[in-house]
Amino acid sequence: MEKLSIVKIGGNVIDNDEALNKFLKDLSTVKGKKILVHGGGKTASEVAWKLGISQALVNGRRITDAETLKVTAMVYAGLLNKRIVALMQSMGINALGLSGADLNSVQTSKRKNIDIDYGYVGDMNEGSINVKAISALLDAGITPVFCSITHDGKGQLLNTNADTIASALAVATAGLYEVQLNYCFEKKGVMKDVEDENSVIGSITKTSYKKLLGQGAISKGMIPKLDNSFEAINKGVSAVIIGHSDNIVKMIQRKKHEGTELVA
Amino acid sequence: MEKLSIVKIGGNVIDNDEALNKFLKDLSTVKGKKILVHGGGKTASEVAWKLGISQALVNGRRITDAETLKVTAMVYAGLLNKRIVALMQSMGINALGLSGADLNSVQTSKRKNIDIDYGYVGDMNEGSINVKAISALLDAGITPVFCSITHDGKGQLLNTNADTIASALAVATAGLYEVQLNYCFEKKGVMKDVEDENSVIGSITKTSYKKLLGQGAISKGMIPKLDNSFEAINKGVSAVIIGHSDNIVKMIQRKKHEGTELVA
Repeated sequence: MEKLSIVKIGGNVIDNDEALNKFLKDLSTVKGKKILVHGGGKTASEVAWKLGISQALVNGRRITDAETLKVTAMVYAGLLNKRIVALMQSMGINALGLSGADLNSVQTSKRKNIDIDYGYVGDMNEGSINVKAISALLDAGITPVFCSITHDGKGQLLNTNADTIASALAVATAGLYEVQLNYCFEKKGVMKDVEDENSVIGSITKTSYKKLLGQGAISKGMIPKLDNSFEAINKGVSAVIIGHSDNIVKMIQRKKHEGTELVA
Repeated sequence: MEKLSIVKIGGNVIDNDEALNKFLKDLSTVKGKKILVHGGGKTASEVAWKLGISQALVNGRRITDAETLKVTAMVYAGLLNKRIVALMQSMGINALGLSGADLNSVQTSKRKNIDIDYGYVGDMNEGSINVKAISALLDAGITPVFCSITHDGKGQLLNTNADTIASALAVATAGLYEVQLNYCFEKKGVMKDVEDENSVIGSITKTSYKKLLGQGAISKGMIPKLDNSFEAINKGVSAVIIGHSDNIVKMIQRKKHEGTELVA
């Protein structure tokens, strides 16, 4: 099977023009099929703040109300997605920006929760990813660039976690390609000691993950990412690498000592 | 040749949720290949105003400065384009929202003007439209939905007039399809008397257009649209119809007495 690299980038790349440029240049040197998934960074909060839209919180959880959804659609699908696509095109990558509504590529369901109404948040389910549409794009030499806006198929846009979209894309395409999922963030990998950049764990197995969790060695923010990743591996994804966006080329090429590799 | 309907909608449809819904429902009943092009309406100005970005004017002409470009990218490519695409998907149309950067579908050049720097405005040229990419989408049963954001191929997004994009798309695809270009606006057509909705001119030929211009019977705002339209007809577009968005189905089906038809 042909290799497909799915790459998720977050705030540390998105919020910084220079970092974004460098990252996309690096990515453009990597041959083969690729999908990019991006989060929103700080821009959405800044725009919301300037527009006087207050961050709605219920029991400490962030709520996507109607006004906040509009801001995320503007910033993620408009400003950031098109900026990334224009840069990639200038670097010779035939990029196509997508929300989940485009080509019905990612259809989700509005979150139902008895205790808290999270607002316009879309949760993925088994059939969320339109594999047929996405593989047709990949096979035509197109690089899809997903923002974290999805839709419910009934005309409603929804806000969905970008990490979750990336892992769902990886799982859904695993039958057609040899899929490697790469999470880029501001650290060199999963670290034993959050203060020590030299404490990156080279690889984590399901067994060692349980041990690390037991020791409290995994930071709270990393746990959903790792849980998602192991689930993706269980469902046929070949490899998941977590590392710094500066090292994306080495991560994709699986050069040793860059990032944390998750192993079945 | 197969028929292709290119439809441009403006503020009167975009600014009103109910009108937009009705318009898209009408459009979804029309069989065959379609491209939708949308302008921005009032939302971009409203968002700019709320963000404290003042409308830059030089000699009475609107300038797209860097901050204004960001707002147009957010509103046109994000908020409006994705709202339209999500609605169309819910109505069974396989819509794909596009800026000119996506798939390098519309590449323009930053306007050069000795007297006034218009800022980030992109002008079309002969090779602006990526006909190959667009016809591949159409032939795959996809309905492209263009916003009026383009790019220069060097990583810069640009703001481009939506009417111009629509006519350039029509001219560029005229070799492959029997193209009908439909301009929808808030009037029933080109009127002899702007005050009288019953004075719609059923058809205008090149000869009668000159006469009407001489009589001062064409309102100033209509002249660029009509000039563009006759140029499109000269370059192989089969028909151009100008009419009210409420009558889009009849316009596409060329039912008599709806809108103004431009004739070679």
